[in-house]
Amino acid sequence: MIVDLICIGNELLTGLVNNTNAGYLARQLSSAGIAVRKCSVVADEVEAIKEAVAEGLRRSDAAICTGGLGPTDDDLTREAVSAILERPLRLHQGWLARLETFFETRGYHRMPPANRKQALLVEGSTILENPRGTAPGAVVEHGQKLVILLPGPPQELQPMFEEQVLPLLKARRQGRIMLTKTLKCIGLGESLLEEKIKAVGEWEQPSLSLVARGMEVLIQLKSFGEVEQAAQLLEAATDILRAALQGYLYGEDEETLAGVVAELFVRRGLTLAVAESCSGGLLADTITGIPGSSRFFKGGAVTYSLESKRLLPGLSEKLLQEHGAVSAATAEAMARGVRDFFKADAGVGITGIAGPESDVSGQPVGLVYVAVSLGSSTEIRELNYAATRRAIKERAVQAALTLLWRRLSAGNAP
Amino acid sequence: MIVDLICIGNELLTGLVNNTNAGYLARQLSSAGIAVRKCSVVADEVEAIKEAVAEGLRRSDAAICTGGLGPTDDDLTREAVSAILERPLRLHQGWLARLETFFETRGYHRMPPANRKQALLVEGSTILENPRGTAPGAVVEHGQKLVILLPGPPQELQPMFEEQVLPLLKARRQGRIMLTKTLKCIGLGESLLEEKIKAVGEWEQPSLSLVARGMEVLIQLKSFGEVEQAAQLLEAATDILRAALQGYLYGEDEETLAGVVAELFVRRGLTLAVAESCSGGLLADTITGIPGSSRFFKGGAVTYSLESKRLLPGLSEKLLQEHGAVSAATAEAMARGVRDFFKADAGVGITGIAGPESDVSGQPVGLVYVAVSLGSSTEIRELNYAATRRAIKERAVQAALTLLWRRLSAGNAP
Repeated sequence: MIVDLICIGNELLTGLVNNTNAGYLARQLSSAGIAVRKCSVVADEVEAIKEAVAEGLRRSDAAICTGGLGPTDDDLTREAVSAILERPLRLHQGWLARLETFFETRGYHRMPPANRKQALLVEGSTILENPRGTAPGAVVEHGQKLVILLPGPPQELQPMFEEQVLPLLKARRQGRIMLTKTLKCIGLGESLLEEKIKAVGEWEQPSLSLVARGMEVLIQLKSFGEVEQAAQLLEAATDILRAALQGYLYGEDEETLAGVVAELFVRRGLTLAVAESCSGGLLADTITGIPGSSRFFKGGAVTYSLESKRLLPGLSEKLLQEHGAVSAATAEAMARGVRDFFKADAGVGITGIAGPESDVSGQPVGLVYVAVSLGSSTEIRELNYAATRRAIKERAVQAALTLLWRRLSAGNAP
Repeated sequence: MIVDLICIGNELLTGLVNNTNAGYLARQLSSAGIAVRKCSVVADEVEAIKEAVAEGLRRSDAAICTGGLGPTDDDLTREAVSAILERPLRLHQGWLARLETFFETRGYHRMPPANRKQALLVEGSTILENPRGTAPGAVVEHGQKLVILLPGPPQELQPMFEEQVLPLLKARRQGRIMLTKTLKCIGLGESLLEEKIKAVGEWEQPSLSLVARGMEVLIQLKSFGEVEQAAQLLEAATDILRAALQGYLYGEDEETLAGVVAELFVRRGLTLAVAESCSGGLLADTITGIPGSSRFFKGGAVTYSLESKRLLPGLSEKLLQEHGAVSAATAEAMARGVRDFFKADAGVGITGIAGPESDVSGQPVGLVYVAVSLGSSTEIRELNYAATRRAIKERAVQAALTLLWRRLSAGNAP
């Protein structure tokens, strides 16, 4: 099954709004074995929408449209699809009643007249429920093909797609499909990883492609075949790669390194505290992004100024003067100090120079020391990665999470 | 001037890589008065690329292609453009020499043979320098129209575009163009802001559209006319809106609230410290994302566990028991406590429930207290915003920055 994505909205063409729907739908579809042939971003204009939908119906099995279902004059997706399929718009009484209730329960005297058009559906549509907003989605069958209309806001589009559209598309898959899966590795470069992969197989089916993302390498597996057969091929390959890449492969698809580390902390009943200088709170933010992180994360210190570092136990004036604020010794003392300060089992210390300029020490931008203290030992890594401020912060956080993951997954934690 | 964007790459259609180039180029182009008619994302296939470039040349003044300029077999943009323009590929001796030096200075014995194809240019191209990578960009004139090839990696594409492509496109603008500008407001809802805007003018030229993004409202101004005239219209409108929206309008285009707050701290010679519970380090991360933030940011405490809150001065067992961890009193004590702890002029305290589940107190997810302490006074805001964990964190940070911005820009700082 092949689809075209059509994202509708002037705000996407001026860049005022980032088009997150395209990436989300591409990932959802391709991991379900549904290939995206093309994605078009077009203006809020009937002709532009008609042209893109017509191309999708000509070349693919379905045209999936996002946006343009709002109540204002420039929301024209309904009109364009009605014109291209030569089917009139009909008022859906059920949705009209639903809209009136929606506004009533939100304290409006009555529904704004403009919203009435949101109850218009192309004749023969199947409505898609939208409990989070006023625009219903719709599925229209056109011969063997489909036109699918989804609202633009991601918080409305995503549950609607996963609950109501994806099952429908999956049921229509037939013949040979392409299934994809992503394996996520850390701690080994792209070419060394490739060598390890080649050493265990030929990899024509599934095919493999590697993409480096910061310190991570993503391995995308693609298998072709009947649904069952393609899934089995992926599963078998994953088993082989899991064994071959032990110590580097930390997760799959939507899993994150922080999420995997969080699980390990919870499973082992250990707690964590972090002290950050150049990463400036990004490690704490990343960890507290995981639901339930309060079960193991005690707290963090962002010791950005030199004098604030001295607030941690063990960071003496003498140590800072002898070794400098950006040094292995300081990172180690920060890891131990913050662990003591928050009475946690593990401590992380990160210190470095995020740029764009060096500090008084004159050390190079991108020099970062990361220390992890757990049990009786502390491990330290030196990074040298001249890049943007944001990229340096992200690398430092990845390095800290990698050290934690290795220690906790290796079975030698205290 | 009107352009088509064509983003090339299988990894964009599977969602493995997010298409950040599209949004970046859309913003750059539209704020220079160059309209993006359509953006297409297509596969690494000659036919798909040819079709999109041909459509761009038919409908727009230029087709801007990103990606597909690498050394591997599936990098096919050069070949496709050569075919559609019916002009052969020619080896560029200068770039070949540059490639050989590039690999030599990076310790390679010799250049990998595959990279040779990166020195192939469509006949009649003007080369675009790329000091950050191995793929040159290219501009090809085709009658009155242009085909522009840019490499996919953003760190290569962005400086190439701004330094070498944008000036060239600007010079070709003629007749009436559309210029855009974005004004950024905080602290007032979309409809109240709209009332204030309508009270001072008609706004047909420039036209205005409002978009809410979290607690912010973005006002996009669009003016049509000859370059000079369009720019003057924007400038005049901006002056009127600046006066009408004083206290809400904090910046323009690429400016951020954190950046504007950072400038105010530096200008006033004041320092800041922050204590975060539910925002988990995101405020510290946002502030330290601003280059030069070490000039005013002393540090932060992420007091995630209940016992870690007690490490701040003034947060007694009694206070926490009487008012609870998520309370106005605790937020205030955190703001004052962290300010004392880091010896800063201003302190922020954030405490709340980011979900997805409530804590032992049973208070609702999304309840957040934000306090800002500066001079002799502390201001506190209560937020009630049931949303995702990430969205709640972001709102809390926006609220804190808004309080800081108001205090520092109002002229009543100590």
